[in-house]
Amino acid sequence: MGLWYDETFDDHTRLGLRVKETLFSGQSAYQKVEVIDTVGFGRVLVLDNIFMTSEYDEFLYHEMLAHPALTTAPSIERVLVIGGGDGGTVREVLRHPEVKRCVMIEIDELVVEASKRYLPGIGTAWDDPRLDLRFIDAIEYVETSRDDRYDVVLLDGTDPVGPGAVLFDESFYRGCKRMLTDGGVMALQSESPLLMMDIFVETQRKLRSLFSEVHPYLGPVPLYGTGTWSWTWCSDTGEPLRPKRQRQTAIVEGSKAYNEELHQAVFALPNYVKRALKL
Amino acid sequence: MGLWYDETFDDHTRLGLRVKETLFSGQSAYQKVEVIDTVGFGRVLVLDNIFMTSEYDEFLYHEMLAHPALTTAPSIERVLVIGGGDGGTVREVLRHPEVKRCVMIEIDELVVEASKRYLPGIGTAWDDPRLDLRFIDAIEYVETSRDDRYDVVLLDGTDPVGPGAVLFDESFYRGCKRMLTDGGVMALQSESPLLMMDIFVETQRKLRSLFSEVHPYLGPVPLYGTGTWSWTWCSDTGEPLRPKRQRQTAIVEGSKAYNEELHQAVFALPNYVKRALKL
Repeated sequence: MGLWYDETFDDHTRLGLRVKETLFSGQSAYQKVEVIDTVGFGRVLVLDNIFMTSEYDEFLYHEMLAHPALTTAPSIERVLVIGGGDGGTVREVLRHPEVKRCVMIEIDELVVEASKRYLPGIGTAWDDPRLDLRFIDAIEYVETSRDDRYDVVLLDGTDPVGPGAVLFDESFYRGCKRMLTDGGVMALQSESPLLMMDIFVETQRKLRSLFSEVHPYLGPVPLYGTGTWSWTWCSDTGEPLRPKRQRQTAIVEGSKAYNEELHQAVFALPNYVKRALKL
Repeated sequence: MGLWYDETFDDHTRLGLRVKETLFSGQSAYQKVEVIDTVGFGRVLVLDNIFMTSEYDEFLYHEMLAHPALTTAPSIERVLVIGGGDGGTVREVLRHPEVKRCVMIEIDELVVEASKRYLPGIGTAWDDPRLDLRFIDAIEYVETSRDDRYDVVLLDGTDPVGPGAVLFDESFYRGCKRMLTDGGVMALQSESPLLMMDIFVETQRKLRSLFSEVHPYLGPVPLYGTGTWSWTWCSDTGEPLRPKRQRQTAIVEGSKAYNEELHQAVFALPNYVKRALKL
C-alpha cells in the first residue's frame, strides 16, 4: 500500500487518503499543484496541500454550486465563473441549453493544464464553443471590466487563505454584484458551518450587507471532511425556492445528485446555523 | 500537542483526531472501550478503535435518530431503545413529554459506566424515572419477550462488524417489528450511502422485505467522516412527512439541529441514492 496524504485542519483534525501514485506535482507562481491517485477517492486535485476535488465526490460540490442559481435566475444566457480550475463548475453550467456564453476567469493556468491532463472526467466541457476561458486575475477583471454584465456569477474559490483569500473580501463581492444584470443571481461556496463557523458567519454578514436576498444552503462533500459544506445564493430580487421547472427537467436526469426535492431541501437550515445567523 | 488517534476505513481513508488525553481505557467482554479528550471534537467515545460519538457533533446523530420517529408515530407512550450506551438517544427520547416509559437494552455495561463518568454532557437523562435500563443481550430480549409492545423502537447499534453485527440481521429486524404496536414506527441508523453503499443498500432491502413503508433519510455526522450518514424510518402504516406539530413544538427550541423544515428536508434523496435503491 502507498503512503497516506493527510490534510490537517487547524492542527487538530485530519483527513488522510491512501495514495496509489502521484500523477503530477508542480509549482506555479501562485501555489503548489498536485494530482494524486488515491484508493478511496480516485484522482484528487491538491493545491498547497489542501484537497480541492476528487473524482469520487466532485459531483456533490459542482452540482450544488451551479444548479440552485442556474435554475432560478430570470435569465441564464451569460454566466461568469470565477476560479474552478478543475473544470467541474463550467461543465455543470454548460449542461444548461439556455446558456449562450460562459466566461471563466482562472488565475492559475497550471491548475487547468494539470486538470485537463489528469482529471479529464471532471472537466468534460473544455471544448464547448460557449466557453471563454481566460487566465487572468479575477480581482483585476472585476475592477476593470465594468461594462461586462452577467445573469449569473458563480464564485468557485479555494479557501480564504493563500492566493484565493481575496475572493472572500467584501470589496470583491461588491465588484461581482456590479457585474450582475437586473435580478441576476450570484452563488458561491461559503465554507463549512461546522468546522469553520466563524468564516461562514462572517461571509454571510458581508453578503447581507450587499444583497437583499442571501440564502445559505448545505450539503455533504466527503473530501472536505467537515460533515457539511455550504454554498450561498444571493440576489436583490427573487428567491431560491422557485426554480424554473423546464430548466430542472433539462438537467435532473444527467445529474448524480441534483433533483427537484433536493433543491428545496438544501435550503432547510438546522437550528445551530439559524441561531448563529440570528435567523 | 498530543498524538493522533486515527480511524481507518477499509485501509484507504482515515479520520484523525489530535488527542489531549486518554480519559478511560478498558476491555469488556465484548469490546475495547475508550474515552479520549480531543482538541477538535471534545471528548470522544471509541469502541474497538471506531469513533462512536463526540461532544462536538453528537446532537447531529442523536436528534436525527430520535425525532423523525417520535414526532410521527401515532402514540409514543412506550419506547424501546436498543444500544446507545452513551445515553444520547434516550436523552432525546425523554425530552418528549408524551413518553411514559423508555426501555433501553444495552449489552455492554462498561460503555454506560464510562459514558456516565466521562461523557456526562451526552447522557443527561440517566436519572429520569421513566428510563428502564437493562444490561442484557438485545437478540435474546427480542426473541424471548414476545409480550412486550412498544410504540417506537429505535436501533442505535454500532456498525455491522464486531459484537453489534447481529443487530443488522433480517431476523433481528423481524423480531423488533413484532414488538411494535399497530402503526408503530421503527427507526435505525443505517450507515453511509457514500462510503458504505453496499451495506446501505442491503439494509434497505432487508427492511423493505418486512415493512411496507421504508424511508431512508440523510444528514451529516462529521465524526463518521464519510460526508453523509443515513437513518431509516420504517412502519406498516403512516408516513414520515406528517409530523405532529404539537410534538415538534415541544422539542424544537431545545434542539441544536432538529426543526420542522429539517424534518421534511432530510427525506429528500439525491439521485445517486434513489438510483441505487431503484426509487
